[in-house]
Amino acid sequence: MDIKVIAFDADDTLWVNEPYFRRTEEEFCNLLSEYLQPHALERELLKIEIGNLPLYGYGVKGFMLSMIETALKISDKTISLDHIEKILDLGKNLLNEPIDLLDGVEEVLATLKDKYRLVVATKGDLLDQERKLKKSGLSHYFHHIEIMSEKDVVNYRKLIKHLDILPENLLMVGNSLKSDILPVLNIGGLGVHVPYHITWVHEQIDHTIENANFRSVENIREILNFL
Amino acid sequence: MDIKVIAFDADDTLWVNEPYFRRTEEEFCNLLSEYLQPHALERELLKIEIGNLPLYGYGVKGFMLSMIETALKISDKTISLDHIEKILDLGKNLLNEPIDLLDGVEEVLATLKDKYRLVVATKGDLLDQERKLKKSGLSHYFHHIEIMSEKDVVNYRKLIKHLDILPENLLMVGNSLKSDILPVLNIGGLGVHVPYHITWVHEQIDHTIENANFRSVENIREILNFL
Repeated sequence: MDIKVIAFDADDTLWVNEPYFRRTEEEFCNLLSEYLQPHALERELLKIEIGNLPLYGYGVKGFMLSMIETALKISDKTISLDHIEKILDLGKNLLNEPIDLLDGVEEVLATLKDKYRLVVATKGDLLDQERKLKKSGLSHYFHHIEIMSEKDVVNYRKLIKHLDILPENLLMVGNSLKSDILPVLNIGGLGVHVPYHITWVHEQIDHTIENANFRSVENIREILNFL
Repeated sequence: MDIKVIAFDADDTLWVNEPYFRRTEEEFCNLLSEYLQPHALERELLKIEIGNLPLYGYGVKGFMLSMIETALKISDKTISLDHIEKILDLGKNLLNEPIDLLDGVEEVLATLKDKYRLVVATKGDLLDQERKLKKSGLSHYFHHIEIMSEKDVVNYRKLIKHLDILPENLLMVGNSLKSDILPVLNIGGLGVHVPYHITWVHEQIDHTIENANFRSVENIREILNFL
């Protein structure tokens, strides 16, 4: 192993994120409960979200716009404007959520920061991710933050080039096999999966990974055992 | 002059942008003409946009959310849901606008690309700016694209560090004195202003710049005269 840079995913790897989205989604379902059952509503929202991804990308603002679009659609434009206002409020609250660091994160960063170049590699809204990093108090551990429109092979190759390293010098740590691990392994980098207890449907994959450059740990602290 | 990197603003420096926003704003005003006169409506929208900037940042998605919020407010929540749907459509159309390169841009990039490292330094939605660069056909001229949440002294310092150059090695070319020129001069870099015929109110400043590191040209081609 010749690791020079360790890249960390942010949401649900460094701090709690998905539970806030889920709670917002629940509140959205409550708001529209007279039109559709929660389960059907979630499916409708997901469909619209995924349909809008190529246009909006990831992040809270696109999520807000997709919630509004879903509300118009499933109510056949009969919903009240109070509900639209409430959806805007839900989104703004989501943008203002506090940052809860996950267990072990600060210890890991403090231990590794002098041995490796540490970066954040994340998707989502630029300003929102910058704000979260600032609020997290973790900024000083990182060389820089890379916001990617999509975590795919093309963008990881750009990151490698940008960091001026070889693929085998990159270790990516994250909770999404699809976004944080597979594309990194595919370009010849190393990946450590730290599962989070809930994962957005869109990030789920249904096969197992067998690769010498891959490990899975239960707590992020365990990466210190082999670094 | 020891210029190593030339950074170009994107919107209204490389390609047309503000006129598309203005046209969208006009259509928004037409949509709500029964509630307020265009002038008052634009003021109201601007106030809400600027109020939301710290939360949403720059870009089309935040603009869409601010249009919806403005519509709710000025109609006192009496507007029809067809109008809300129409606002979503206006925003989606804006995200799908074609890219019109400004006069001289391609010639300038082609001439400079082997002599300097060229980068794009822009604000706005990450995915939207990446898509525009791709659609522009200009990607191959640039070493990389830097999307900044705010074009201020702090972020230009980060850019310099990131590019591994000194401030005096950076020349920034752009249409906004406030975002592209002043902060770059303030950190010791060079700036060339290429005014565009319309500028968003929020980008306007009301004083003149006197600085040996500053020039203003009428057409971007003129920068070839001194580089």
